[in-house]
Amino acid sequence: MKESIIQAFKNLRKNPPLVQSITNYVVMNNTANALLSLGASPIMAHAKSEVADMVSIVNSLVINIGTLDEYWVDSMLLAAEKATQLGKSWVLDPVGAGATRYRNETISELLKHKPSIIRGNASEILSLARVNIESRGVDSSHGSEEAVQAAVSLSNEIGCVVCVSGEKDYIVEGERIASLANGNALMAKITGMGCTASAIVGAFAGVEKDLFLATTSAMAVLGIAGEIAAEKADGPGTLQLYLYDALYNLVSEELRERIKIEI
Amino acid sequence: MKESIIQAFKNLRKNPPLVQSITNYVVMNNTANALLSLGASPIMAHAKSEVADMVSIVNSLVINIGTLDEYWVDSMLLAAEKATQLGKSWVLDPVGAGATRYRNETISELLKHKPSIIRGNASEILSLARVNIESRGVDSSHGSEEAVQAAVSLSNEIGCVVCVSGEKDYIVEGERIASLANGNALMAKITGMGCTASAIVGAFAGVEKDLFLATTSAMAVLGIAGEIAAEKADGPGTLQLYLYDALYNLVSEELRERIKIEI
Amino acid sequence: MKESIIQAFKNLRKNPPLVQSITNYVVMNNTANALLSLGASPIMAHAKSEVADMVSIVNSLVINIGTLDEYWVDSMLLAAEKATQLGKSWVLDPVGAGATRYRNETISELLKHKPSIIRGNASEILSLARVNIESRGVDSSHGSEEAVQAAVSLSNEIGCVVCVSGEKDYIVEGERIASLANGNALMAKITGMGCTASAIVGAFAGVEKDLFLATTSAMAVLGIAGEIAAEKADGPGTLQLYLYDALYNLVSEELRERIKIEI
Repeated sequence: MKESIIQAFKNLRKNPPLVQSITNYVVMNNTANALLSLGASPIMAHAKSEVADMVSIVNSLVINIGTLDEYWVDSMLLAAEKATQLGKSWVLDPVGAGATRYRNETISELLKHKPSIIRGNASEILSLARVNIESRGVDSSHGSEEAVQAAVSLSNEIGCVVCVSGEKDYIVEGERIASLANGNALMAKITGMGCTASAIVGAFAGVEKDLFLATTSAMAVLGIAGEIAAEKADGPGTLQLYLYDALYNLVSEELRERIKIEI
Repeated sequence: MKESIIQAFKNLRKNPPLVQSITNYVVMNNTANALLSLGASPIMAHAKSEVADMVSIVNSLVINIGTLDEYWVDSMLLAAEKATQLGKSWVLDPVGAGATRYRNETISELLKHKPSIIRGNASEILSLARVNIESRGVDSSHGSEEAVQAAVSLSNEIGCVVCVSGEKDYIVEGERIASLANGNALMAKITGMGCTASAIVGAFAGVEKDLFLATTSAMAVLGIAGEIAAEKADGPGTLQLYLYDALYNLVSEELRERIKIEI
Repeated sequence: MKESIIQAFKNLRKNPPLVQSITNYVVMNNTANALLSLGASPIMAHAKSEVADMVSIVNSLVINIGTLDEYWVDSMLLAAEKATQLGKSWVLDPVGAGATRYRNETISELLKHKPSIIRGNASEILSLARVNIESRGVDSSHGSEEAVQAAVSLSNEIGCVVCVSGEKDYIVEGERIASLANGNALMAKITGMGCTASAIVGAFAGVEKDLFLATTSAMAVLGIAGEIAAEKADGPGTLQLYLYDALYNLVSEELRERIKIEI
């Protein structure tokens, strides 16, 4: 799988995907910079008057509900619907799943449009699995170890790739499970690192049809760039900037050398 | 008071508060990063459909009117009302007070919900005192030296802590006045440094019940982190990043050594 | 012209303009920081309830349609109308012109309020010229070399300065054409570098009545600050931060030494 990841990375550098993000205000700048540094082209557009037109011209779509409100949710639904219609891959980042009833209801609506990939932290994925099950009248219990279990159920039920990110990242598609041990703990001290992960997943999904491979490649690339950045950084401030530099300067050899993957 | 500040800082590191910010688009990323670097957990949520639910799960709330509009003002009022109902501390940052009639009217509405702490620069605090007085039919004159005077009136009238930030920061609660001489002039060349101050005030208000102490601690911590960052920085760009590093790496001894406080 | 540019730069440092930006979410923080580093004062305000009042107190206005939606477009139109009424310079940045019908329609509406300066990349300026012509029933063909030609037509038709930015920047006002060869290719890997250019154009337009000179000065200053930053940077992350430092530390002698201008 290592060599396939490296191939996917090379493809992305050669064929820069156009990635539309309907994402939260906090991280828009970060995710746009991460995409540019990686070699992709970011588009941020959310107006109901153009969101579907925009989906038509991009390679993939990322929907992140971080700072959702009623207008933005309408836009997200329009965009998700259009992406599904056109057969384009779209990534759901269910930020803060479980925190409020409104977030859960929004996620339920979005799940109806069959995301291609879902990426969240353990608590979000657990909550998501529960939301999806609850909507059919069943309850489920919590627990951080259960996140991968939840990811498997979610993957089977929605028919999508699910990524649980954390100290270790797990990527699940039905029976296939990969785990990655790259990254650095300091990355959690930068806002929107998860959102950046989802954006990069979107970029790989714009060039690679095997979405399990696309997701795994994205998480590997971000984790490794984070490691490289952390070696120089004195704290979360410098880490963020060095991360963009590292994404920009990353070469296949480093990827091959540093990747810590288990299937 | 120095030792109480150090104690408050230690408490915050031990018990990371969850801080909700309804703040302006320009600084969301900055304030989230500052909170994370400090050791607090930021939440940004503003949808009318969830804003009150979110207030229920956080330790404190910050409302910053920087890029206000009609929708956001409704959300701010809902959140402020809920915080007051639940007895949770909330901080008002009246960005641009006095610049337009709409800002002044919005501030009048927000003041009805009795903020726990108000933080602004001299001109904002002067304007705020005037808005509050004007609404009762009295006028007042301007002047930068009068800001502390205005803070005292405002504190007595609203029954809250008022912080006037600037070259020196003044923290006022009725008869109590503290002044801090930390910080560096270059900090004024980074956008949203005042907004970041308010966010950090919110974080301390989430762990410390004496809000005069909480506000003073927050302003001391930010000023000192700014000093440390400025010693390395070559301009406002690097200052901003080093500031997050400094917040992250700050230890009690540095705080004790550097703090310049007068009561 | 070199000496006039240096004079404009000195004027800006001496008389900091207040610049209102109605701009996109992705770059608000960047453009505010760039303006502060340069020595200008940024204001971001978009509420329909105050946008015209705000225009009354600023020196110039920048309208950037990057993340437009129906509410924001109404605000942009209110602001543009007020600026024109008051005879204040306003800059249009037609981000993503041509990408969707909605963007084109919005641009058509904005052009009716006669922007003082338009700044875009080659494809945006070409698209803009086409939009403007199309609305009178005429079609036009594409081509990257035609951008300057399009800028000349647009300048004549609207009666404004047009700047086509890219590897070389072209500034056009009727018969007058200047070209600048400053800058560094890595600048394109930072999100919103064009938006930052427009913001700086707005700052110069707030202090300099000759708008051809104002625009040329702004593009020269940004290009040169970018060059200085790129000499130290290891990638797009550090470049962005060093750029603010460079804007802040820039002195007239450097400007004189580095400027590559042709008339």
